[in-house]
Amino acid sequence: MFGAKRVIQFQRCIFGKRFICNLRNAQDHDKAKLFDIMKQRKGSVLTEADVLDKFNTDWTGKFKGHSKYVLVPKDIHEVSEILKYCNTEKIGVVPQGGNTSVVGSSVAIDEEVILSLARMNDIESFDETNGILVCGPGVILQTLQETVCNKYNHLVPIDLGSKGTCMIGGNLSTNAGGQYYYRFGSIHANIIGLEVVLANGTILNLMNLNRKDNTGYDLKHLFIGAEGTLGVITKLALSCPPLPRSKNAAFIASNTYGDVERTLMKAKNELGEILSAFELMDKAVLDQVMTEKEVPLIQNDGTNYAFCLLVETQGSHSSHDREKMESFLQRCMEDGDVVDGVLAQDMKQISKMWEIRESCNPIIKSKGYNYKYDISLPIKEYYTVAEKIRERLSTCDQAVEVVNWGHVIDGNLHLNVITPGKFNVDNDILNLIEPFIFEFVVEKGGSISAEHGLGQCKNNYLGKYAKTPEVLSVMKMLKESFDPNGILNPGKFLPTK
Amino acid sequence: MFGAKRVIQFQRCIFGKRFICNLRNAQDHDKAKLFDIMKQRKGSVLTEADVLDKFNTDWTGKFKGHSKYVLVPKDIHEVSEILKYCNTEKIGVVPQGGNTSVVGSSVAIDEEVILSLARMNDIESFDETNGILVCGPGVILQTLQETVCNKYNHLVPIDLGSKGTCMIGGNLSTNAGGQYYYRFGSIHANIIGLEVVLANGTILNLMNLNRKDNTGYDLKHLFIGAEGTLGVITKLALSCPPLPRSKNAAFIASNTYGDVERTLMKAKNELGEILSAFELMDKAVLDQVMTEKEVPLIQNDGTNYAFCLLVETQGSHSSHDREKMESFLQRCMEDGDVVDGVLAQDMKQISKMWEIRESCNPIIKSKGYNYKYDISLPIKEYYTVAEKIRERLSTCDQAVEVVNWGHVIDGNLHLNVITPGKFNVDNDILNLIEPFIFEFVVEKGGSISAEHGLGQCKNNYLGKYAKTPEVLSVMKMLKESFDPNGILNPGKFLPTK
Repeated sequence: MFGAKRVIQFQRCIFGKRFICNLRNAQDHDKAKLFDIMKQRKGSVLTEADVLDKFNTDWTGKFKGHSKYVLVPKDIHEVSEILKYCNTEKIGVVPQGGNTSVVGSSVAIDEEVILSLARMNDIESFDETNGILVCGPGVILQTLQETVCNKYNHLVPIDLGSKGTCMIGGNLSTNAGGQYYYRFGSIHANIIGLEVVLANGTILNLMNLNRKDNTGYDLKHLFIGAEGTLGVITKLALSCPPLPRSKNAAFIASNTYGDVERTLMKAKNELGEILSAFELMDKAVLDQVMTEKEVPLIQNDGTNYAFCLLVETQGSHSSHDREKMESFLQRCMEDGDVVDGVLAQDMKQISKMWEIRESCNPIIKSKGYNYKYDISLPIKEYYTVAEKIRERLSTCDQAVEVVNWGHVIDGNLHLNVITPGKFNVDNDILNLIEPFIFEFVVEKGGSISAEHGLGQCKNNYLGKYAKTPEVLSVMKMLKESFDPNGILNPGKFLPTK
Repeated sequence: MFGAKRVIQFQRCIFGKRFICNLRNAQDHDKAKLFDIMKQRKGSVLTEADVLDKFNTDWTGKFKGHSKYVLVPKDIHEVSEILKYCNTEKIGVVPQGGNTSVVGSSVAIDEEVILSLARMNDIESFDETNGILVCGPGVILQTLQETVCNKYNHLVPIDLGSKGTCMIGGNLSTNAGGQYYYRFGSIHANIIGLEVVLANGTILNLMNLNRKDNTGYDLKHLFIGAEGTLGVITKLALSCPPLPRSKNAAFIASNTYGDVERTLMKAKNELGEILSAFELMDKAVLDQVMTEKEVPLIQNDGTNYAFCLLVETQGSHSSHDREKMESFLQRCMEDGDVVDGVLAQDMKQISKMWEIRESCNPIIKSKGYNYKYDISLPIKEYYTVAEKIRERLSTCDQAVEVVNWGHVIDGNLHLNVITPGKFNVDNDILNLIEPFIFEFVVEKGGSISAEHGLGQCKNNYLGKYAKTPEVLSVMKMLKESFDPNGILNPGKFLPTK
């Protein structure tokens, strides 16, 4: 197909360090050249072991790279020069934002050079008439949210648990989802323009400040969610809606998943255009979270109920919004779909509710080894998978907890299996979960990666559980066309075997 | 760049019929084979001159093809077989939906075969829990809107003037914009899955029913807005929001563009999440429209004012929505930004308002030759271009009208110059408009094609007014990879010189 010349094969050698065909690690003479490109400015090349450690260790602790050089360019021209050199010399490059990937997509596999975008963190402009922000990829999401809100009275349409660390360029490169996806749409929906550097150093100017621009293939979408394998994002224009004037949130409890489903449909219909988030946590995850947090006002910390839901609205009229929310809650209680709950009385209580939801991930990480699954399923099948996994693990002679939360409104579930107090992977447990979970998801028409991406964790499942050979073939053709030497984030995203 | 092997050059020969390198027109033996593929079912191959005429003539009447065969496949397998054959035989193929393009993208340039998707018009399924529709490309937009609304209580997030004729596959292929773009987002934002046939007949299954799916390059975006040059869309999954329970619309008048701008900002802030459309018509276009329509309740048919605006809301609560709309209108009147207006009292009056707005295009077409421009501009510069064009044309010794309307909320202006009673192009007039208008748009940071696309009308302006050489190079590389023989919609979209 497409008369592909040479299909790049990444090969991971288990017993050796050399894993990638055609690529080599940076040597001393490369070091001199890279230092030269970076003009030896302070902090532009990082080589000290303790500093490197944080760039080499991914958030989950499961993936560890061996990069000896972290390059921190200050502008697009440095990025271009670095890539040009590495492409000619066939040195692997791992673009890195906040290093919060949970699929190992932002750390090296071997000794690839890390290209940190952290320094390219200018907020260049904000057009208040059009609601369009232009900034560098290195801005931390939370900083961006606060600036756009406090300074420009608009809202960044992306929010996720790792906002204090992740960077907007990484959000784009991983097509980050998060809690506001239903209301404000995907990254594809909100990105207006991009600037990208290709593997050979070519600068691709896809910058644009017009909401409507129908001139040619819309190339920016290729780089969104590509995990840096086709190019490095160096600037972006993001559409930001006007800041809502009113926010409401309720933390409510249901006894069955059927009740959750009915509550979800009611929220869509009754809260309509002001519904901004509808998040689920099951009893199992709240049992974990409640050892360290408290759910204020919910009876017995919410752990008496099978499910707790966080329902949030954002709108332009506080009394209208409050009326809608109260009427929605009343209806749910009357119908018996919701059995307990609390409506936040101020912004502090809303934050508290989100804090509980966002603590799920870090708290369970501290409890034991996490077998993490980020899947999409039809709403009707959303929780069946958790029940099935529990059933399968009941034969296991070790203590395990199957804890679940997620953006149920998008069909996106974060299913995690924990082995309390044990921090190493156990193959017996793994074999009870995989490949069953992937087969189940595929059978139900779901996705094996809803928002976390592929990295080095799911790339080799692509052919079996996600894409047809024809689609994989087009993916490979694109990779080969944009990055013929395979220097960009090698060994990830595309299948290596 | 990219070591491109052979750049496909389309060459249009002005005095001859042969215009495309490497391609040939269908001969008698091809006819036999194509008839064979279509199993000679009734209406599956159209060859009669009067029938062909409507497929060969574009909506504007400016572009006329010479196709002798219109193939009307019933399913993806026939599409695949047709393309496979035409690719091997190097016969050009023009995919066609409702043939409502205004840039000549859906008619042949010479004798290419037309591939009409009209028969692939099944509405396959609608998932009411997720709001996801699956259908063929041949469904007429209005039929789709009515079915989704009446049968499934949801809304198709796309609406445009040609809805009674255009087809959803064509809307996707041209990345159609329209009036609900601000509220519901672009086609890229709303398409969940696609099925595509590539030039060589390969079926690319990008179908997906999950709102979140982060497995691999998101290839569907490549085919959205590509005007059928990379593949033929044969099925789609579209996200549809719940049907709003209440709709309001106001037809209001302002005396200056500054007033329009302030009114727009007020609408965004005060109507917030329920604002669904904000459309502008200037006095010049209303003068034309009013010869055939009436603007009910607006003094002197609205033609006393410099601008009329159609502001629409869609929401979930009729009394809340009405209160917001009335308060917005009152504020505008008090501030003096709006000097007259009427608030629709029922759905019939809302339809009447939209009828006026949507009649702009067909009515001016009947008045004389239309020099049509579909541009994006920053809101601040939105109307300057009309004033500049009027100034330039004031030196012209012929009667001309510069009439304007558009989706001002997206910065999208439809600027049209009419020569009343004269239906042929006049080069003196053309030279007063072009290239000035494109240079002006580029200088202001706008786009020379906001939503109409490129077709055979703007493809050769790409390099000068829209894309850098690097971007064009990537576009050509993609075209060459997906369609190495250049059979798909030849001579359009990409530059031919």
